[in-house]
Order: sequence, then structure tokens, then C-alpha cells
Amino acid sequence: MGKVKTMAEETAEKTEPTKEKKDENTVFVGKKGVMGYVLAVVTQFNNGVETVMVKARGKLISRAVDVAEIVRNRFLPEVKVSDITIKTEELTSEDGSMSKVSAIEITLAK
Amino acid sequence: MGKVKTMAEETAEKTEPTKEKKDENTVFVGKKGVMGYVLAVVTQFNNGVETVMVKARGKLISRAVDVAEIVRNRFLPEVKVSDITIKTEELTSEDGSMSKVSAIEITLAK
Repeated sequence: MGKVKTMAEETAEKTEPTKEKKDENTVFVGKKGVMGYVLAVVTQFNNGVETVMVKARGKLISRAVDVAEIVRNRFLPEVKVSDITIKTEELTSEDGSMSKVSAIEITLAK
Repeated sequence: MGKVKTMAEETAEKTEPTKEKKDENTVFVGKKGVMGYVLAVVTQFNNGVETVMVKARGKLISRAVDVAEIVRNRFLPEVKVSDITIKTEELTSEDGSMSKVSAIEITLAK
């Protein structure tokens, strides 16, 4: 009986329908090499996804921009930047104090 | 969007009208402290400018985002991000070789 549900649940992991575009595939850019994140984005598009969101915080913001630019210039010229948003996020550090950090979300779309 | 032509023409000293939004006041974010650039942006708005463009390249991109966020969150809450563009620029290094660097332009508007 749960046959249809299984399908739904498979895609449900990445959907989480908030009012934002959470239904898109997201690549969080961290401290690893740029090309790993480029590959992650390219792979998502090659899997048939229409939009990929590249996110980063703090000093890694510049790396997220590199990722988006390398994807477009070197691998997928048909991909466009459809949206960029910046915001401030609050982080709790280990000692419990709050700190603010800038964040970026770059939406790439075929 | 930010094609405030008449204003732009009045401040034509610094305009160099390419097809881009060169007609706006621009703050280039460099290696100095964030607050200096924040002050530069706030000063421009207080001088009556309608839009300020915050630009940066490479690793300084994250600082440009910090500048925009601090201006909005701490000093001028009425200011909005009206546009963000990312691109790749080519630089010639000292030894004559070309290298590519990502760049960001954040347009803030009252």
C-alpha cells in the first residue's frame, strides 16, 4: 500500500517545503577545495535538476562565488545566476556567546 | 533597475558611462577594516545619493557582503539590496601571466 509514499518520501528529504525555495538542491560551500563543490553542482545539474543553490557563510562566501563562476564559465555555460541573496545569520559559538556572520545564497538555474 | 539617469548625469564627474551602472557611487572594498567601508557607504547615502555600489574581488568578496549587511542592519535599515551581480575578471599579475578572479557588485538603494 505504501508504494506511492515511498516515492514521495524519497524526494521528501530534500523538499522541506518552507516558503523559501528549499525544494531546490543545495550545495554548502565549506573549507575543502573549490573543485569539489563545482563537481557537486555540475553533478546535480547532470542528474536533471533545474536549479542548484550554492550557500556559504563568512569568509567562505568568496569561495561560493568562485564555485558559481567556475560552473558557468568552464562547465555549464547555459547555466545562469537566477538569484543572489545575502543575509546575516546568528551563530552560537562554543562558549555560548552569539556572533553574527554574513551568508550568501546563489541560485543557479538551467 | 538602478538607472537613475538624471541623478547620474548630475554626478557625471565620476560616471564614465559604460552600459553598466557606472553612474552610481561606488565603494571598492579592499584590505582595510570593514568599518571604514561601512562609513564610506553611510556617508554617501547621507550626502543624498540614492544608490551605492559596493564592489570587491577575490577573497575580499566576503568583506563586501559584511559591509552591505552592517550598513543595513546597524546604520541604515531603510537601505535595501537592489541588485547583486557576480562575474569573473581577468587580472594581469606582475610576471605578465593572466589570472581570473571572481568579483561581486552589491547595489544598495534607499
